[in-house]
Amino acid sequence: MPMPMTEPTDDRDLVITRHIDVTPNALFRCWTEPALLQQWFVPKPWTIATAEVDLRVGGSNLIVMKSPEGEEMPNRGVYLDIVQDRKIVFTDAYIHAWTPSEKPFMTGIITFEPEDGGTCYTARVRHWTKTDRDAHEQMGFHEGWNQCADQLAALAATL
Amino acid sequence: MPMPMTEPTDDRDLVITRHIDVTPNALFRCWTEPALLQQWFVPKPWTIATAEVDLRVGGSNLIVMKSPEGEEMPNRGVYLDIVQDRKIVFTDAYIHAWTPSEKPFMTGIITFEPEDGGTCYTARVRHWTKTDRDAHEQMGFHEGWNQCADQLAALAATL
Repeated sequence: MPMPMTEPTDDRDLVITRHIDVTPNALFRCWTEPALLQQWFVPKPWTIATAEVDLRVGGSNLIVMKSPEGEEMPNRGVYLDIVQDRKIVFTDAYIHAWTPSEKPFMTGIITFEPEDGGTCYTARVRHWTKTDRDAHEQMGFHEGWNQCADQLAALAATL
Repeated sequence: MPMPMTEPTDDRDLVITRHIDVTPNALFRCWTEPALLQQWFVPKPWTIATAEVDLRVGGSNLIVMKSPEGEEMPNRGVYLDIVQDRKIVFTDAYIHAWTPSEKPFMTGIITFEPEDGGTCYTARVRHWTKTDRDAHEQMGFHEGWNQCADQLAALAATL
């Protein structure tokens, strides 16, 4: 049964969704090719110092975010599901297959659905607790993910 | 790089390992066929009231344990990796793909390695915290999993 993807189905979810006037493939590439990912994956003026992607179920990623002051924040995760041009699922509950992380915080379910010649882009972020969901929202989830979606759309339009 | 499987590599792990004089296939079947799983997966005199297995990466399982007094304890999990006759990885961090459970407690990595005409059977159980690992040990992990391994070996020998 396909899960409806435009509204939170769980009070532990945070979701952004929007139409982007590029192909699903362009967005999928921006999410999965390190050289592209580095250009949009953190709200500017932060930057991505390192992006490593092993794009397969059980593959790991490492994304090191860098603050304007030069502080680096590494983020590790593992891919749980990959459907070419349609879907990416990953979690920070593991640092690689299958070693638990220090703190299972979130699972990202990113979908790229063809829509009116472009793409309905949805980022659903699930948390294990409502407390973590609320903390993520307070940390600026909506502002951050929307700014990144703007950067993503602008980059994808150049491909 | 293959992970050594006979010792804990992390102080959040619990591990049992033993030689069992049956084929890897017989043990793999006992782990994955509901009618077999029901016969050994909980220390007697507990029983398994229900066993449902959707054996694929991202597939769910539901195992309902039943106490001698008739109390039922449902356990839900998701398979993260399956290698026919060699390996099963599952976690209770999700109740199905990819909905977080109430509490991510453990990840099971079960391996069946051919050894001297039988199988080196290893169950490595990883936890997100040392506290959970210690609680699991206190709950009788070694006694329970070893009794189940006895039951598993006896059943597999009849196949």
